[in-house]
Amino acid sequence: MTENNKIGRYTFLAEPFHCDSSGKLSMGYMGNTLLNCADFHSKSRGFGMTYLHDHNCTWVLSRFAIEMYEMPAQYDRFEVETWVENVYRLFTDRNFAIYNAAGTIIGYGRSVWAMIDVTTRKPLDLLALHSGSITDYICDHPCPMDKPSRIKLREGQEVGRYVARYSDIDINGHVNSIKYIDHILDLFPLDYHLSRKVTRFEMAYVAETYCGETLTFYREETAPQTFDIEVKKEETLICRSRVCFSDQTTNNEQ
Amino acid sequence: MTENNKIGRYTFLAEPFHCDSSGKLSMGYMGNTLLNCADFHSKSRGFGMTYLHDHNCTWVLSRFAIEMYEMPAQYDRFEVETWVENVYRLFTDRNFAIYNAAGTIIGYGRSVWAMIDVTTRKPLDLLALHSGSITDYICDHPCPMDKPSRIKLREGQEVGRYVARYSDIDINGHVNSIKYIDHILDLFPLDYHLSRKVTRFEMAYVAETYCGETLTFYREETAPQTFDIEVKKEETLICRSRVCFSDQTTNNEQ
Repeated sequence: MTENNKIGRYTFLAEPFHCDSSGKLSMGYMGNTLLNCADFHSKSRGFGMTYLHDHNCTWVLSRFAIEMYEMPAQYDRFEVETWVENVYRLFTDRNFAIYNAAGTIIGYGRSVWAMIDVTTRKPLDLLALHSGSITDYICDHPCPMDKPSRIKLREGQEVGRYVARYSDIDINGHVNSIKYIDHILDLFPLDYHLSRKVTRFEMAYVAETYCGETLTFYREETAPQTFDIEVKKEETLICRSRVCFSDQTTNNEQ
Repeated sequence: MTENNKIGRYTFLAEPFHCDSSGKLSMGYMGNTLLNCADFHSKSRGFGMTYLHDHNCTWVLSRFAIEMYEMPAQYDRFEVETWVENVYRLFTDRNFAIYNAAGTIIGYGRSVWAMIDVTTRKPLDLLALHSGSITDYICDHPCPMDKPSRIKLREGQEVGRYVARYSDIDINGHVNSIKYIDHILDLFPLDYHLSRKVTRFEMAYVAETYCGETLTFYREETAPQTFDIEVKKEETLICRSRVCFSDQTTNNEQ
């Protein structure tokens, strides 16, 4: 298998209802799009729903980081490449590159996944699955963005609460991975968003939230325009996040 | 132009993140999909963004009704047809038919649109635009669902409040049309949704909501499992809605 065959490439349109007040695709929808690509790509390579269902196992997203130089504007076409960077016993690293319609790279993504047994909720040995064939898909392809950070708040301030509702809940009965991105970005006022763009967004998923449960959001500005966030359900940590903004006028395109 | 040429037909996939706790596409995303089709179809027929921008006008959704016999399940492909049923001086009726992958009709939609001048916010005479060419697209195609209802609460009870946030706001600076659908369905507990399906959903859009404004939701059960809803911003009516549920076990497919 050549390196090129190991890379999935998918085309999308930035739909108006998926864009925010700036008219650009929201970070939540970019996340949604990347996770769809992960799903399409693993499915077409033997690790899709049928395999998972027959083996009573499922992929679990552990970490997710997205870095964007320029977000697609509404009605823009964009392309996403995804590939497997590494496979360890308990985790696999899947990366992403995002291209604008002109073929210029406008962002990257990194994700870390585990596979668990649906009944026991215990992680499975990825190297033992499918006769270890997952390693055939490891691909050497550049992803020049930092790996997901270690996020730990020292002096987090409570900045918001949210009760999980019907529209947050997926087929597994818990708040879906993308909704946390929206809820975290909603901690910042519209005016703050309008004069800035999100250049890097990170999530570390720890525990699940069910409908009706109250999430409390703690935030600390650890560097100018860089915020570390912890989301808790009473004393239980649900997820951690880091959001890096830059001024809209800053030109940090590659 | 033949009748068939007047009908747009588009294919979609029910993405997992767009499905609700039942594993079926949420009504909000079905609405999103139909509005995208309206957009694609009007764009390819001379009333798209370029025309609107050059003429300083925009389409405004006034009424929207969706009736579903069966919602696509996650990973299902489905198709949407859309066509213009009528054009009046101030409004145009655009209809939709939704097909499952086997080609069976699983739902219908009706929408009513006005075109306004962006500066004055006044409605424009549709029959005078583009030399009246919009009437060329009128098409006789079946849409066997009731027209949007007159919704008027007699004894509405306050059932919820919601403060509009960053993720609700579109490029025009107000809460996007689809978000109201999610917020209205969030008035019903998860258990209520899990044992039922939404068979008909209606929206009548009246006024706009801006970020930070508080919406108050009033509800009245006007028939068994049929709810009329008014959404207000203080004393100002923002929109009205009707939601009809049926038991999941009821077989009301065509």
